[in-house]
Amino acid sequence: MKKKLEKITPREVDFAQWYTDIVLNADLISYGTVKGTMIFKPYGYAIWENIQKFLDVEFKRVGVKNVYFPLLIPKTLFNKEKDHIEGFSPEIATVTKVGDKVLDEELYIRPTSEVLFGTFFSKEIQGYRDLPLLYNQWVNVLRWEKTTRPFLRTSEFLWQEGHTIHATSQEARDFTLKILDIYAEFAQKKLLLPVIKGQKTAREKFAGAEETYTIESLMYDGQALQCGTSHYFGQNFSKAFDIKFANQQNELENAYSTSWGVSTRLIGGIIMTHSDDNGLVLPPAIAPTQIMILPISNEQQQLQAVQKLQVELQEYRCEIDESDKSFGFRVANTEIKGIPLRIEVGPRDLEQNQVMIARRDTFEKISVPLMAVKETVAKLLSEIAANLYQRALDNRQQRTQKITTYNDYLKALAKGNGLFLVPFCGRIECEDVIKAETQTTSRCIPFDVKPQKTVCFHCGQTATNLVYFARAY
Amino acid sequence: MKKKLEKITPREVDFAQWYTDIVLNADLISYGTVKGTMIFKPYGYAIWENIQKFLDVEFKRVGVKNVYFPLLIPKTLFNKEKDHIEGFSPEIATVTKVGDKVLDEELYIRPTSEVLFGTFFSKEIQGYRDLPLLYNQWVNVLRWEKTTRPFLRTSEFLWQEGHTIHATSQEARDFTLKILDIYAEFAQKKLLLPVIKGQKTAREKFAGAEETYTIESLMYDGQALQCGTSHYFGQNFSKAFDIKFANQQNELENAYSTSWGVSTRLIGGIIMTHSDDNGLVLPPAIAPTQIMILPISNEQQQLQAVQKLQVELQEYRCEIDESDKSFGFRVANTEIKGIPLRIEVGPRDLEQNQVMIARRDTFEKISVPLMAVKETVAKLLSEIAANLYQRALDNRQQRTQKITTYNDYLKALAKGNGLFLVPFCGRIECEDVIKAETQTTSRCIPFDVKPQKTVCFHCGQTATNLVYFARAY
Repeated sequence: MKKKLEKITPREVDFAQWYTDIVLNADLISYGTVKGTMIFKPYGYAIWENIQKFLDVEFKRVGVKNVYFPLLIPKTLFNKEKDHIEGFSPEIATVTKVGDKVLDEELYIRPTSEVLFGTFFSKEIQGYRDLPLLYNQWVNVLRWEKTTRPFLRTSEFLWQEGHTIHATSQEARDFTLKILDIYAEFAQKKLLLPVIKGQKTAREKFAGAEETYTIESLMYDGQALQCGTSHYFGQNFSKAFDIKFANQQNELENAYSTSWGVSTRLIGGIIMTHSDDNGLVLPPAIAPTQIMILPISNEQQQLQAVQKLQVELQEYRCEIDESDKSFGFRVANTEIKGIPLRIEVGPRDLEQNQVMIARRDTFEKISVPLMAVKETVAKLLSEIAANLYQRALDNRQQRTQKITTYNDYLKALAKGNGLFLVPFCGRIECEDVIKAETQTTSRCIPFDVKPQKTVCFHCGQTATNLVYFARAY
Repeated sequence: MKKKLEKITPREVDFAQWYTDIVLNADLISYGTVKGTMIFKPYGYAIWENIQKFLDVEFKRVGVKNVYFPLLIPKTLFNKEKDHIEGFSPEIATVTKVGDKVLDEELYIRPTSEVLFGTFFSKEIQGYRDLPLLYNQWVNVLRWEKTTRPFLRTSEFLWQEGHTIHATSQEARDFTLKILDIYAEFAQKKLLLPVIKGQKTAREKFAGAEETYTIESLMYDGQALQCGTSHYFGQNFSKAFDIKFANQQNELENAYSTSWGVSTRLIGGIIMTHSDDNGLVLPPAIAPTQIMILPISNEQQQLQAVQKLQVELQEYRCEIDESDKSFGFRVANTEIKGIPLRIEVGPRDLEQNQVMIARRDTFEKISVPLMAVKETVAKLLSEIAANLYQRALDNRQQRTQKITTYNDYLKALAKGNGLFLVPFCGRIECEDVIKAETQTTSRCIPFDVKPQKTVCFHCGQTATNLVYFARAY
């Protein structure tokens, strides 16, 4: 489709512009007509489809079933849970008319669907034998954003939202963490994003949740990205929505609920973690095209050879680019689109029964005997995956610091973005001040770090936890 | 979940109530909070997922790529194509506010997305080499309906909408028909719905289309259901949206577009075609559970046997119901949920190394040696498919009549619903009168019936075609 490859602003010069250049040049999206919306073009949507396939299997493996709940939520229903409505109301698109007819009650376009699931659960369950109910839906949601950026922050986005309901607090909390593990495993193994698992502070937790768990990743530029969250609601929603069941003692009890989601912003995270000045770099597991085969010219022998190769590599998402564009253009196109491996087939190679294989991540190019292509491809794809993960982990480690005083924190921030592990009091008011002064927020209270007896890096009160702070997308 | 199986109103007594009873008792849906909306429960949504899987493969096979376009459409954009806005405007849900802020321009929730794709295509294409673009999206759409019925007519529904753009009229029209063939093949082979392919009359074609093609099916009660449509727009949308490309002569030309869709109403069609007074009857290809294995009691030997069977039948969607509900309840549950095959495993059967297999469609029950279960299952599933299709075809044929005078038409309608092939003038005004007088509409101008020199069955003017008329959902 593209007539020419445009110049990509170097990542070190202007990270935000680099990001936009990548997103547009790799043909992932086009801007929508309504401000803050975007069109997922085939290449961008195919990445989301691959993400969906992996996660959907994992959800089903732990017993989750897919459902579909309506897009529109009556205003009165949304207002039942106080924290929830306060958290979302400024961002909610509201339907007031159908045709020329003004509606009796305003309808909200879902920014998330807890209240619909809550209403449903309250009618659906009677006894403890009906529990748990483990539901998920893959849908669009709307949250009107002031500043928007493709994938990262758009007025409409695609996500999955899981909603479950349980007979005991323990089971609900365990399930919240089971999903967090699925997210973390998927992010690390398939998206090659090193993530930190942890809990959100009181200020950052989800509107209406008792506890919010998160996986947090650090982007190339040192800003953090929340990649997925899993919320334990306790009985908050079940009290607001009167979700009661007869427990084993045959007493009516409010059920315990969870919700959890990942969205298309994961694609933004992949881009900002792995890509470079030549374009997109995609993890092999979710790349729409894993291998692109290029005949150097459209000479008959080459065309036959590339077709034979494609058949041999049919277990991969492998395509041939034999378009009439120049070889150089086609090479650049595989790079800008982040295709993990490129196989070049030319006349001299064929004379020697070999092809050239180029890695997108390192630009390394090796000649490979035709009969060794299949095993080499397998080996290289797994090396690429390992390398992308390691590169991202190295970047995060270089940008991670332990800090104990606010003064050191300000100095560190002045030097550049990164992830800062600090002793923190956990108070909302304290975090409000930090955010106002530094535009940084707490990312999570990591699981694997023991709390120490010390004082808050900012206010000096008793620190309850070591907490990661960062600027974040 | 269900505490007890409720009574299903007999199909012959009250077809509409029978339908509602099936939908609710089979646990397919729950009513939504907003009037006219519904919740797809896991069992109902799983049918839709199976439909999606089949069709998505077929679309991709002919080169279609999935995309995602925004939910909201600016009012001015929608108003660009006159017929289109006239066709949809009374049904459109309109967003006028975000939070407390009134929007400068009203935004429509998509009832369909031609105008967004049109706007996109106009920016995307330059020369004939960019064409065709073959896109599809699986999304929710809203069309506010006065009277609603689960799956068949709801304010929000799920569908796929394909949108393509081509360099020549011939190619676009051919593609419209290629998709119609995919729909027909899928409906007949997988959903076991006998369908008639044909073209819509001027009155019934899609708002803004030049030609609309359709697959029409006849339900058990003799009313027709439009199961899928494929529209050829000619240059209507490309003129309204200024979609131009440089053709091979390097002259700017308006492109030719198509759109096509099937929706969750297909599920309604399956129900109204195959189900009976015992509950749902599902075609094996799209049944969420194809085989249910029931141990008669929870005796150890039986539990081992059913697990072994499940492993042996793992290529099917095969489940075990070993819940503590009575055997009779569990049997009725497989029937109400339309599970094609039920395998009953009891102590006396096991002594003789056999099980009982029951067909949902005919209630026939046979004893089968354990070692022959796998081959018998394969044979029975294919017999069930053949039988369901034939049963539906017989029903349609019994209810189809050729009619040449309006007097005969009124008499036939008085006897009952059905499909009536009549010579018709094709005029909108004539059809308006027929509809007002009989509540019947033209369903399609079938492809395989030659037009004859005769007069319109209603107005007596020259008949242009033989056309199917029926009452329709």
